[in-house]
Amino acid sequence: MRALLLDGQVSFRPDYPVPTASRDDVLVRVSMAGICETDLQLVRGYMGYAGVLGHEFVGGAESGPYAGRRVVGEINCACGTCALCHRDLPTHCANRTVIGILRHDGAFADYLVVPQRNLHLVPDSIPDEIAVFTEPVAAAFQILAQVPVTGRDRVIVLGDGRLGNLCAQVLAGVTPHLLVVGKHREKLSLLEARGLRATLLDDAPADRSADVVVDCTGSETGLPTALALVRPRGPIVLKTTVAGTQTLAWAPFVIDEITLVGSRCGPFDRALAALDRGEVDVRPLIQERLPLERGVEALELAKQRLKVLLEVSGR
Amino acid sequence: MRALLLDGQVSFRPDYPVPTASRDDVLVRVSMAGICETDLQLVRGYMGYAGVLGHEFVGGAESGPYAGRRVVGEINCACGTCALCHRDLPTHCANRTVIGILRHDGAFADYLVVPQRNLHLVPDSIPDEIAVFTEPVAAAFQILAQVPVTGRDRVIVLGDGRLGNLCAQVLAGVTPHLLVVGKHREKLSLLEARGLRATLLDDAPADRSADVVVDCTGSETGLPTALALVRPRGPIVLKTTVAGTQTLAWAPFVIDEITLVGSRCGPFDRALAALDRGEVDVRPLIQERLPLERGVEALELAKQRLKVLLEVSGR
Repeated sequence: MRALLLDGQVSFRPDYPVPTASRDDVLVRVSMAGICETDLQLVRGYMGYAGVLGHEFVGGAESGPYAGRRVVGEINCACGTCALCHRDLPTHCANRTVIGILRHDGAFADYLVVPQRNLHLVPDSIPDEIAVFTEPVAAAFQILAQVPVTGRDRVIVLGDGRLGNLCAQVLAGVTPHLLVVGKHREKLSLLEARGLRATLLDDAPADRSADVVVDCTGSETGLPTALALVRPRGPIVLKTTVAGTQTLAWAPFVIDEITLVGSRCGPFDRALAALDRGEVDVRPLIQERLPLERGVEALELAKQRLKVLLEVSGR
Repeated sequence: MRALLLDGQVSFRPDYPVPTASRDDVLVRVSMAGICETDLQLVRGYMGYAGVLGHEFVGGAESGPYAGRRVVGEINCACGTCALCHRDLPTHCANRTVIGILRHDGAFADYLVVPQRNLHLVPDSIPDEIAVFTEPVAAAFQILAQVPVTGRDRVIVLGDGRLGNLCAQVLAGVTPHLLVVGKHREKLSLLEARGLRATLLDDAPADRSADVVVDCTGSETGLPTALALVRPRGPIVLKTTVAGTQTLAWAPFVIDEITLVGSRCGPFDRALAALDRGEVDVRPLIQERLPLERGVEALELAKQRLKVLLEVSGR
């Protein structure tokens, strides 16, 4: 099969072996896949991953109870038997593989293998180019699963990129007092077109009045900026990772009793419902669509553009 | 009056002016005061504080509704009118002074001034040398106000010093699955004598099974150690500050969805009740008692000993 393989560097392979599905797994024929910041970091060496890239996908199940139907899939493949699985924390399973990220070939290929319990059916009303956003939209909804946000809370989303845009849209569904702070006029305009308030970083309110700040910058400047914006006792939600180590004064966390909440994967069912109802509009994010064969070029483009999609198989 | 003054360096002053109490303030004649790690940090230049040191105290009110009675006092003096005060966050008041820490002369003196609303009456059943621990015991109870802890939770307290000891005793009142991890055999023995489990850092369980970790180390190694002990989605409570900046990889907070909770001052009423009932036993912590005149020496001793008390006026 065709695959985009990371092995030190990324290359397109026309003849990579089709993976074999074991008893609890399903072979999924990929229709479409999305490129995410994590993919770009993996290419730069993050996690030391080697294998087929890609963890945002929609495709057709080839086997199991969903055979012949369209599916999306959660990316953490849990063992089901470790202490963390027994505590109902499968996304933190000690023995997990993660699709396209950790010891599990990913979705930038004609086929991938996904545990049946990770799959979610895609309603017919959601086209592929929307369904492919389920994973990052679920990650945005994870914020609400971890931090109570009400309609009276002033919330700031730092970062106007792919994930910042989705987090902003999800939070705008909860509170009207939302502000997106970014560095790119044209990306902020996309949010303003959706009716959201957005501003350049230099114009952000410096009065430490935000009840919640969400850091989607993917930059080591994100957390210091968040500390300058959040009110005492306010939570800062950290959505993006930065490679290496960061330097920061810790004392303000204690003095101002700030809470830092690390946040990762989220609920697929909630994301699918939001996409189906149009609560989150992902179409303006789609800036490029390339065939799988042009995957290396697509990864390069994704450094500059918002969402770049890989078209894998026609339907 | 006599006072221990920090002004670049610490000195004993026999003739410092008695402070004047304004309308909402009460003049308190200090009976006894305690030396805390923060005092030692202030001496080293933390916060740039200049003034009379001391924020742990018990004394007699000289005016107001509690005149002639024994009192302890909360240390944050709020304006009552700023946005944070209006949000019922007086300990985070934007205009606050902090007794012995920020623009407010402290308790290592014959007298200090305290806002009436900061005062709490001390029950007759609590002697001075116990009541003087109210402030740090309240800080320990703040953990329970911020993080839900149940009797099934495995909790690790990092640090066997003054605050670590108190936090451990408070948490032992909630869960039997408590472990104190420290570096000093003799300090850990104090906790074991109270029936708590304690271990040296090298023997701490490295299986990341703690549901909650409380960092009372006052060291920049505390947080990395906490990250190595806490389970995914577990909170780390940061009780102690470290001057300057610290270097750490932030990605694990996101990957393991760790929550970091900065924690500072706490509920005095809860602390007084616990001291009165003997839920927290502070007597073993008292290792030195010196008169106020020997305050400079007392501060030096406090670097090595657990609690050093300053006896200010006899009762």
